Amino acid sequence: MSTNTAILLMHCPDQKGIISYTTQFIHENQGNIVYLDQHVDRDENRFYMRVEFELDAFLIPKDKIEDYFNTLLAQKYNMTYKLYFSDKVPNMALFVTKMSHCLYDILSRADSGELKVNIPMIVSNHQTLKKVADKFNIPFYHFDINKSNKEEVEAEQIKLMKENNIDFIVLARYMQILSENFIETFPAKIINIHHSFLPAFVGAKPYHAAHERGVKIIGATSHYVTTDLDAGPIIEQDVAKVSHKDTVKELIRKGKDLEKIVLSRALYKHVNRKLLTYKNKTIIFD
Amino acid sequence: MSTNTAILLMHCPDQKGIISYTTQFIHENQGNIVYLDQHVDRDENRFYMRVEFELDAFLIPKDKIEDYFNTLLAQKYNMTYKLYFSDKVPNMALFVTKMSHCLYDILSRADSGELKVNIPMIVSNHQTLKKVADKFNIPFYHFDINKSNKEEVEAEQIKLMKENNIDFIVLARYMQILSENFIETFPAKIINIHHSFLPAFVGAKPYHAAHERGVKIIGATSHYVTTDLDAGPIIEQDVAKVSHKDTVKELIRKGKDLEKIVLSRALYKHVNRKLLTYKNKTIIFD
Amino acid sequence: MSTNTAILLMHCPDQKGIISYTTQFIHENQGNIVYLDQHVDRDENRFYMRVEFELDAFLIPKDKIEDYFNTLLAQKYNMTYKLYFSDKVPNMALFVTKMSHCLYDILSRADSGELKVNIPMIVSNHQTLKKVADKFNIPFYHFDINKSNKEEVEAEQIKLMKENNIDFIVLARYMQILSENFIETFPAKIINIHHSFLPAFVGAKPYHAAHERGVKIIGATSHYVTTDLDAGPIIEQDVAKVSHKDTVKELIRKGKDLEKIVLSRALYKHVNRKLLTYKNKTIIFD
Amino acid sequence: MSTNTAILLMHCPDQKGIISYTTQFIHENQGNIVYLDQHVDRDENRFYMRVEFELDAFLIPKDKIEDYFNTLLAQKYNMTYKLYFSDKVPNMALFVTKMSHCLYDILSRADSGELKVNIPMIVSNHQTLKKVADKFNIPFYHFDINKSNKEEVEAEQIKLMKENNIDFIVLARYMQILSENFIETFPAKIINIHHSFLPAFVGAKPYHAAHERGVKIIGATSHYVTTDLDAGPIIEQDVAKVSHKDTVKELIRKGKDLEKIVLSRALYKHVNRKLLTYKNKTIIFD
Repeated sequence: MSTNTAILLMHCPDQKGIISYTTQFIHENQGNIVYLDQHVDRDENRFYMRVEFELDAFLIPKDKIEDYFNTLLAQKYNMTYKLYFSDKVPNMALFVTKMSHCLYDILSRADSGELKVNIPMIVSNHQTLKKVADKFNIPFYHFDINKSNKEEVEAEQIKLMKENNIDFIVLARYMQILSENFIETFPAKIINIHHSFLPAFVGAKPYHAAHERGVKIIGATSHYVTTDLDAGPIIEQDVAKVSHKDTVKELIRKGKDLEKIVLSRALYKHVNRKLLTYKNKTIIFD
Repeated sequence: MSTNTAILLMHCPDQKGIISYTTQFIHENQGNIVYLDQHVDRDENRFYMRVEFELDAFLIPKDKIEDYFNTLLAQKYNMTYKLYFSDKVPNMALFVTKMSHCLYDILSRADSGELKVNIPMIVSNHQTLKKVADKFNIPFYHFDINKSNKEEVEAEQIKLMKENNIDFIVLARYMQILSENFIETFPAKIINIHHSFLPAFVGAKPYHAAHERGVKIIGATSHYVTTDLDAGPIIEQDVAKVSHKDTVKELIRKGKDLEKIVLSRALYKHVNRKLLTYKNKTIIFD
Repeated sequence: MSTNTAILLMHCPDQKGIISYTTQFIHENQGNIVYLDQHVDRDENRFYMRVEFELDAFLIPKDKIEDYFNTLLAQKYNMTYKLYFSDKVPNMALFVTKMSHCLYDILSRADSGELKVNIPMIVSNHQTLKKVADKFNIPFYHFDINKSNKEEVEAEQIKLMKENNIDFIVLARYMQILSENFIETFPAKIINIHHSFLPAFVGAKPYHAAHERGVKIIGATSHYVTTDLDAGPIIEQDVAKVSHKDTVKELIRKGKDLEKIVLSRALYKHVNRKLLTYKNKTIIFD
Repeated sequence: MSTNTAILLMHCPDQKGIISYTTQFIHENQGNIVYLDQHVDRDENRFYMRVEFELDAFLIPKDKIEDYFNTLLAQKYNMTYKLYFSDKVPNMALFVTKMSHCLYDILSRADSGELKVNIPMIVSNHQTLKKVADKFNIPFYHFDINKSNKEEVEAEQIKLMKENNIDFIVLARYMQILSENFIETFPAKIINIHHSFLPAFVGAKPYHAAHERGVKIIGATSHYVTTDLDAGPIIEQDVAKVSHKDTVKELIRKGKDLEKIVLSRALYKHVNRKLLTYKNKTIIFD
């Protein structure tokens, strides 16, 4: 398969012929479809599709594809869509606090080439993980954030993101609640990992709450951040069995493995444009 | 292994020597320990143990064991305990409404001898499942329950349980909320299956709520019923992965498999005396 | 969604435009596509697709669809395909020996309407499960099979299948090896459940072998039967964690739950035409 | 809980009173048992136990405990045992080839303090991962190994292990087969990660074999290395679901997550003395 592909993620009101029109458009212009998956939500009466096609022989120039698609199809069928190119590597900012497991997991995947991202910066409200950033030669920005300076710190952070053309932000166990303003600056562009199988144990200290409740499974949830705390569209979840033998400390230890794997799976899907969001849900094309 | 064993489930304040004293007691009286598992909860400073021992050569007569144990050990060390004999088959009442999957699963396990219980009755607020009860020749009691007659119907049901020496009750998708009085009549003796990974989606219609939230896993939880709705000690939980493709109807279909397996696992543990409860948690000895 | 749908399962050499041509064919004839999923195997250079479309307004009469599709598309693009109609309920024969768990699971699903099949017969080499067949009023055929009479018994069984228009056969823990002749009479129409995560522990007594090897997981595998023992296309697999504590007897007990769930999931996919086979693999459209 | 504990791992022919004698020994000498778990294998007629007890008030001096235990209990009851102290941090050697995922996972756990080991060296038959060793300031030893020099290279490696007081060796995707001599130098002290759910797909290229067979689950297995290839005692296994959509490349990618998690779980158990081996199996005390 060519590495020079276009990825179209789209949704529109369900109507006859959408697959046919779209594939004809690609086919007639000499695009070779290497992936097509679609989904119809009959409750929402909505159609979702991911199409990936090789560009090597495509007749429409790369920078005109969006224009043509928009004119010929999107407007006509009322499509909401995004067009990505597989050769564009996105810029990811990592936000961390003190725990290193997610950070290490992401950095080692980026280092080995498994996760195709640029990481221009690691941002933290503590100095603890600077040594990890240094190991990987990634600029580390420390912001001493507190209630009184939150607004201005966030303004600085947003400025920093924009200067570095950050495409999306990952909260890799970042123990700060972002303001509405910050979140709305990056819609569907902030990915968080929450250490419970949401919606159980929303908020702080979910392992303590899980222990208190005596659950037999713990979980982790990666989701897009919205202004509604821990309630954004869920990308990925997984769980592990636990027992009465597990202290809170053990739950935390076991949960770390869940957190890092769940977050990395979510990042893989985001980076490879395998999902779209509609209302408060994700549609994932595996 | 002999089928003539005694099972001791106990807990007490943690203190040195409990295992030693208990095993000595059994050992000195010619009991052969075939299972011993213990657990210390350091937060509660509490010690829990399950010991099973063969009675064939035991020097203390079966009907005096409890008395001796109580005098020689339990009172001395402030133990809360229960003593069971493996040759006593418990009497189980099944409460159902309209869905047959849990009912069939339990009846087929009892029929094949995997689940060692007597089932003197199936109780329902609908006639729907009478045909299933008939297939297995189990008396079926229909109670037309509603808001106005709830108290008297429950009184009749309690009477029926007592007349039949019911040891415990299983709510196999019984879609009625039991009164406090009913629940308190059978403490730690009513087992329910809830169709979500509690504490997520407490209450009615959890699959609808799960679909609305867009979760990527669904679950089921079996727990002892307490007067706090869906909040009793959890015995068993399991989950299954789902996706955006799953409609509510699909979630319900997939969830049924979880429900019946989770409930049956819980029953197996309960019937084989593999668990005890303390405060609002279960300690499970596998 | 209409219950009057057609399901097309097809595969062909990968080539541009197949989705487009097929969806156009359906679209132009007023069929409404309610499901489309496709897969390209780049190693095999092969294209696979499942399309389901509503027939209510379809212009081509139901009994002519196959003819038209064959002429206009299948021959032209070298497609191998099957066309099913969702209102046709298939006839399933169940083969069992002595264990009841899979049998009960399947019968209870058929009884509740979850599994849409007719079950004209249960076939067994033992009388043990006749009582289960009787509970569900299904004819039970006992064949006393042994080395000397195997050929003639199988001939009788094949005759019985044909007289009853059996569409597919399920070996629900049937402890007999079928002859090549029997298997080839029902190609991709015999579904087996094997009590291990194949290809580990092929053949008899897999739980004993698993215990001997000291594995930490056990599994079950449902597959189409081919003349190569336990090596046919895998439809569904699942596993459960076990430990050193589990005796062979415990592995067998825990394995039963896996077997019945895995087999029933496979049946659901087969009955709802959610899979096709190519070479020795299944392509599954969830 | 004190961090100054002794851990006793033992097994012996099953006989009455072992728990009682052992706990009495500890109890009478003012040891406080913080963990006790035992297991009886009735087929082998063998008793296994893990006991951990606090040493703070223990009457027998630390360096005499083994002597006393041996004289007073082990010899009398024919026990095979090992005694460990929780304050002794073991020395671990890491063997790698080219893939970094397991290496990174282990180093980041050691770095964060989750895995309490010293890592005096990383050994490799390639230079590829030297850069990872450098990030963590761990000496990297490169041995250019081939058929003709294998014997002498292994002799050097053994010498190196001994000079560094290596307690155990981890093959973190080390793509070389060790000689019998090497393996027998470190009995039950070499831990490997195999990239399949053993015993399925023994040997090289298990993901290719899994793809060829069309399995619906892949797995990873961590085991002690014995001279019988991929057949040593299994410590930990886990699996992940896959589908016909997964190419060999995808299986490899998904498998990496399994491999690193399974290997790290095995290391955690080994380092925390939570398992013992008997014949070709592990007994694991969680």
